[in-house]
Amino acid sequence: METFEKGVAPPAENFDGSSLRILIVHTRWNYRIVEALVRGAEETMISKYHVQPENITLHSVAGSYELPFTAQRLISASTNTLKFDAVICIGVLIKGSTMHFEYIAEAVSHGIMRVGLDSGVPVVFGVLTCLDDEQALERAGLGDRPGKHNHGIDWGHCAVELACKNRRWKDGII
Amino acid sequence: METFEKGVAPPAENFDGSSLRILIVHTRWNYRIVEALVRGAEETMISKYHVQPENITLHSVAGSYELPFTAQRLISASTNTLKFDAVICIGVLIKGSTMHFEYIAEAVSHGIMRVGLDSGVPVVFGVLTCLDDEQALERAGLGDRPGKHNHGIDWGHCAVELACKNRRWKDGII
Amino acid sequence: METFEKGVAPPAENFDGSSLRILIVHTRWNYRIVEALVRGAEETMISKYHVQPENITLHSVAGSYELPFTAQRLISASTNTLKFDAVICIGVLIKGSTMHFEYIAEAVSHGIMRVGLDSGVPVVFGVLTCLDDEQALERAGLGDRPGKHNHGIDWGHCAVELACKNRRWKDGII
Amino acid sequence: METFEKGVAPPAENFDGSSLRILIVHTRWNYRIVEALVRGAEETMISKYHVQPENITLHSVAGSYELPFTAQRLISASTNTLKFDAVICIGVLIKGSTMHFEYIAEAVSHGIMRVGLDSGVPVVFGVLTCLDDEQALERAGLGDRPGKHNHGIDWGHCAVELACKNRRWKDGII
Amino acid sequence: METFEKGVAPPAENFDGSSLRILIVHTRWNYRIVEALVRGAEETMISKYHVQPENITLHSVAGSYELPFTAQRLISASTNTLKFDAVICIGVLIKGSTMHFEYIAEAVSHGIMRVGLDSGVPVVFGVLTCLDDEQALERAGLGDRPGKHNHGIDWGHCAVELACKNRRWKDGII
Repeated sequence: METFEKGVAPPAENFDGSSLRILIVHTRWNYRIVEALVRGAEETMISKYHVQPENITLHSVAGSYELPFTAQRLISASTNTLKFDAVICIGVLIKGSTMHFEYIAEAVSHGIMRVGLDSGVPVVFGVLTCLDDEQALERAGLGDRPGKHNHGIDWGHCAVELACKNRRWKDGII
Repeated sequence: METFEKGVAPPAENFDGSSLRILIVHTRWNYRIVEALVRGAEETMISKYHVQPENITLHSVAGSYELPFTAQRLISASTNTLKFDAVICIGVLIKGSTMHFEYIAEAVSHGIMRVGLDSGVPVVFGVLTCLDDEQALERAGLGDRPGKHNHGIDWGHCAVELACKNRRWKDGII
Repeated sequence: METFEKGVAPPAENFDGSSLRILIVHTRWNYRIVEALVRGAEETMISKYHVQPENITLHSVAGSYELPFTAQRLISASTNTLKFDAVICIGVLIKGSTMHFEYIAEAVSHGIMRVGLDSGVPVVFGVLTCLDDEQALERAGLGDRPGKHNHGIDWGHCAVELACKNRRWKDGII
Repeated sequence: METFEKGVAPPAENFDGSSLRILIVHTRWNYRIVEALVRGAEETMISKYHVQPENITLHSVAGSYELPFTAQRLISASTNTLKFDAVICIGVLIKGSTMHFEYIAEAVSHGIMRVGLDSGVPVVFGVLTCLDDEQALERAGLGDRPGKHNHGIDWGHCAVELACKNRRWKDGII
Repeated sequence: METFEKGVAPPAENFDGSSLRILIVHTRWNYRIVEALVRGAEETMISKYHVQPENITLHSVAGSYELPFTAQRLISASTNTLKFDAVICIGVLIKGSTMHFEYIAEAVSHGIMRVGLDSGVPVVFGVLTCLDDEQALERAGLGDRPGKHNHGIDWGHCAVELACKNRRWKDGII
């Protein structure tokens, strides 16, 4: 069967992230995976875009259902100090024997979308929805799997790009 | 297949729940299970965080579909007296022969998300969505099942953490 | 497999429904089933809670998709006269050969939730989502099925409970 | 297996549609089916309720995803001239090999619900969600199928009923 | 099995797109496919409706989840300069081994609907939701497949039609 090149091309432009303030909200469930994803996002933002480490705020919640609420409240709180330019919500859902996985995944994917659209602040969807542990490990870049790739790297790229663009958009620059 | 440690790590911080006001809205359907979950949440909040028993309000509804509405109305009503710092919605849905389970579970998981985002008060999703009775008993910590764990305990932790943090966020402290 | 007692316990409190105004919006599709459900709800509210028959307004629509809109408009209209204290939306969806059942059921279960949350008036979800006719007959208490139970009875209980409580909540009484 | 009479009873009341303004928004995809459905709705409104042909506005869009937006914009536009009393959104979705059918059907069924609830104008859901062509032909009343029935007829009845009632509801008449 | 003519008829009217401003937001994931779809939309708008090439703004995002937010922000930003008359969101989702496809597709199809309804600007849903690479290639008009058709062409037609009509609707012309 014919196929085509997968993966995502980087943006054509070099973004300067040195003045950005980024929030990462992540779960403590499935923490070995989450930790690797958070690190992937952080390192990408710092090494590729010169985001200042002290301008990345990490905030943990128990599980993925808490991500939209926490992102919304922290965006709102940050207007009193220095506003976040982008948020990354990171969690790992793994299919279990009940239907918990399905209902959480659906509510959270809609909830994160809502928080971005309501607030005007970009909120990156960094929630893995895996059917088993192997899929999660592979997508966090862990172990020796040939196809492994840390998706946190992609979310770091995505957050910086949207954050930089969103500053322009607020000034009516398209 | 490689795996990793499951479960959720406690927050790094010790929260003081002694001045919190918590609402638990729970169903009367599948009450044996619900009762154990409510007790797990209560005991956790009292014993681990010093929430005062008289500051935990219990409110029952018939079924899970009533949880979002009741949570919303009680949050609204509490602004006239002393506002709730967090709500836990507890219910147990078990797959039956019709599609009732699926449509209720979906509407309720979205509804509880909406109430939290609309109100700015954290609303914990404490609804089990089980395919049979055994799954429900195990997740309420009942019987002698080896993997049993009362999920109400997790919801108690979650409610106190979000309640304490939300007070700071309202003051613009991140 | 171990199990537990099913069904829903009545509220601990005796509610006085004698001054309540209740709206029942019901479909005319699958009318034999719907009629039994409506009667079950009415009789429960009248005989158990002294709701006055003249204070129960019946309103019919063609199909279930019309339930949320009609409930919303009648709630809004009732503010000009005497406001409804609760609404029960009653319909019966039965799986057919197209996907009509699934899309209607999902939109309606979300729509009824929205109308309650938007209006502050409790709207009971009285829509059966059955895979065949037998399931519908059984849940309307019709025929000689051993497990038969008229779910309209539950909806009548639920409407009165929420209506009475909602009056207090409006006064800030929890 | 026991069954019961299917189909939908007409409203008990005779509605006078002679002063109503009705909008039909329909797709051009699957036009042979759509055309029959539109004609069924039109003829029903004219012959049964004396809706004036010149008061029925037909508006076409390419596909079903455009129905909610177009209905919303035309409702809004009609407030500058003479407001539509009801809208019927007509489309035909047929399962193909990708998941296009599922995501369109879901977004459209929720979108049409939203437009009705947001605007206060009844918007009838006239979208067939069929698994094959035969199902669509049968539900448009085409060919010689024994169970054939033009669903546009039902939507015409539904639109007139809701339009007439909605006028009263706006005046607080229940 | 009887069938009927598929595909979508062009609008009866010739639209003049020479003064329109169109935004295309597209993903960089699955770019070979996306590029063909974007080109199909552009060429259609330019060659069939005389849209000026300099009035088509292209904007890329990493993945489909970013489409609704970016469309919303650019619509908002464009009010400061010259407002976009329509937006086309183009992406290609392909089923993988996790459930990522399903949750992204659902959140994005609802999100794009919301952005159109919230903003009053037509937003065309140009997201392919394919089960394999072949389906994507075929729907981008690539290769020698007999049934190949570039769906970007349809989206170009759709955007111009809705853009032109929406200008009239704003003036109350139906």
